[in-house]
Formats: sequence, structure tokens, C-alpha cells
Amino acid sequence: MTRIFPEPLTREAFRPFGEVIEMAGAAHYTINQGFTERFNDLAFADVAMEGGATNVSLFLGQPRPAPIEIRLMERHPLGSQAFIPLQDRPWLVLVAGDVHDAASYRAFTCTGQQGVNYARNVWHHPLLVLDADSRFLIIDRKGPGNNLEEVWFAEDKVLGLSV
Amino acid sequence: MTRIFPEPLTREAFRPFGEVIEMAGAAHYTINQGFTERFNDLAFADVAMEGGATNVSLFLGQPRPAPIEIRLMERHPLGSQAFIPLQDRPWLVLVAGDVHDAASYRAFTCTGQQGVNYARNVWHHPLLVLDADSRFLIIDRKGPGNNLEEVWFAEDKVLGLSV
Repeated sequence: MTRIFPEPLTREAFRPFGEVIEMAGAAHYTINQGFTERFNDLAFADVAMEGGATNVSLFLGQPRPAPIEIRLMERHPLGSQAFIPLQDRPWLVLVAGDVHDAASYRAFTCTGQQGVNYARNVWHHPLLVLDADSRFLIIDRKGPGNNLEEVWFAEDKVLGLSV
Repeated sequence: MTRIFPEPLTREAFRPFGEVIEMAGAAHYTINQGFTERFNDLAFADVAMEGGATNVSLFLGQPRPAPIEIRLMERHPLGSQAFIPLQDRPWLVLVAGDVHDAASYRAFTCTGQQGVNYARNVWHHPLLVLDADSRFLIIDRKGPGNNLEEVWFAEDKVLGLSV
């Protein structure tokens, strides 16, 4: 089984796949009579295609046994999808430049203060958490059309993601 | 100084003002090979008016002295605004049906697992947190036009919000 080892998530490493949603390193300004710092416009919610609109959802995720068996990847041809952790817990992201090229896969360990926004058509694995009952806010697209494409791997192509 | 006392936030109490974004009491279904529950489409991101789009931001909030002096209210005539807490910490919401009618004000204590989405044109106070360095995700509108209306109170009309 080919193993993938995650690296720490950084804006630069994630740039080909979308945006990192985090305060660290982001511009900000003061609002609310001095009581709030605003880190404005951190992700492109690309949801308006073909009559789409913004969908705000919550996900409750459960961990998988380690090493995590990667049996499929997915992408959303009609919109972006953002994941923001609601507890300060590390979690995992797995993306690919070319779903059929194992060398193009990149795995990231995210801190509990890092969200990501997968750009439209970026191949990624469904939510991967490390702790039971991990809560996330999701911002993606709702609307007409088929916004899900999946590729399932043959048994001898299953990847192992180290935790 | 007129005092306002918060009540616990519930979906029913908040209905005139927008949506509560929380798992409790919401429909959900299983995705991701059984490892995730999705609580879908919990808020109306009303951002598309007059060329607007979805703005994803982070706020870092600081607490104010208690009782909190309420000196202004605001509303957004072109879009909704959602606040989702990123730590499991209680926080406060203050809304009004009529900004000029003190009897129409409602204050709510939110748990750290409750976000809110202020509907377009709903009068509300800027972010009110109870702990230093409280992080929130904000989903509101960006785009052309003036999307902020504020009403500042005369000194003898300042309200006191109990914590």
C-alpha cells in the first residue's frame, strides 16, 4: 500500500488547491469601537455558477482507523467547498493535482485554527478528523446540476494516509 | 440606565431575526462512508443583491466591561450576516425589532455551539463576546453599495446589557 505522509498546512503549499482560512499571516483591521479585529475576505466562495447559491452547513465527523485507507477522491465541478473547524483540534486534508497520479497527492496536517477552501474542481478526500465528534462549518454550493464527481480506487490502488 | 437581561438563545425566539446555526434540533443525514453527519443548509446567506457575493471572514473579539454599554445598533440593508463561534465559549447577541423602541430589544446568551445569521435589515449590536481573543467565522456580503446603517444613542438613552 502506497503511504502518504502529511506535511504542515501553509498558505503557500495550499495555493494550487484553494485558500487557507486562518488569522495567522492575514491582513486585519479594527472595527466595533476597538473591540474586534476583522480578517476580511479570506476565501473565494465560488458558488454562483448555473443558478447556485451559498449553502451553510455543519458537519460532525468521526475518525477512521490509522493508517487511513484512501479509497476515493472527489471534486465539485460547480463550486468551491470550505471547511472550518469549530473546536481547536488538528485535522487532515488530502488533495491531488491529478486524481490518477499518486505522485500529485499532497496531505496536510491542519491546526484547529486553520480552515481550508477547496477551489472548484480540486480533487480532495472527504473530511478527515482525528477526534470523535469533530464539528466543522461548511460553506459550499447549493443549486441545480450535478456538483459531485467521485473516483473510487481499485483494491490494489488504495492509498494509506499516515496520521 | 435601562437594563436588558439576556435569555437563552433558541430557534423559536430568534426566528423573527434570522436563523440559529446549530446541530441541536436540526435534521441531518450520513455521508462520507458513514464517518460524517451533515446538517445541511442551516442559514440563508442573503448576499447576492445588487451584485453582491459571499464574504468569508474571521473576527477576533474582545470583551467589554459589564454591564455592557449599548451605544449603537446597526443593520445591513443589502445582506445577511452570520457569526459562528470557533471555540466552545458562550457569547451574547442583542437584536431589536425597532431600533427606536427599547421594548423591542431582545438579548440572548448563546452557547459556544450556536451561531446566528442576522437576516437582512435586522437591527443588531456588533459582536459581543465574554472572553478575551474570541474567534468567530463571519459570512456576510461584499459588493457595491452601502451595506451599513448605524443608529447611535444619545447619552441618556444608552442601554445596559447584563452579562
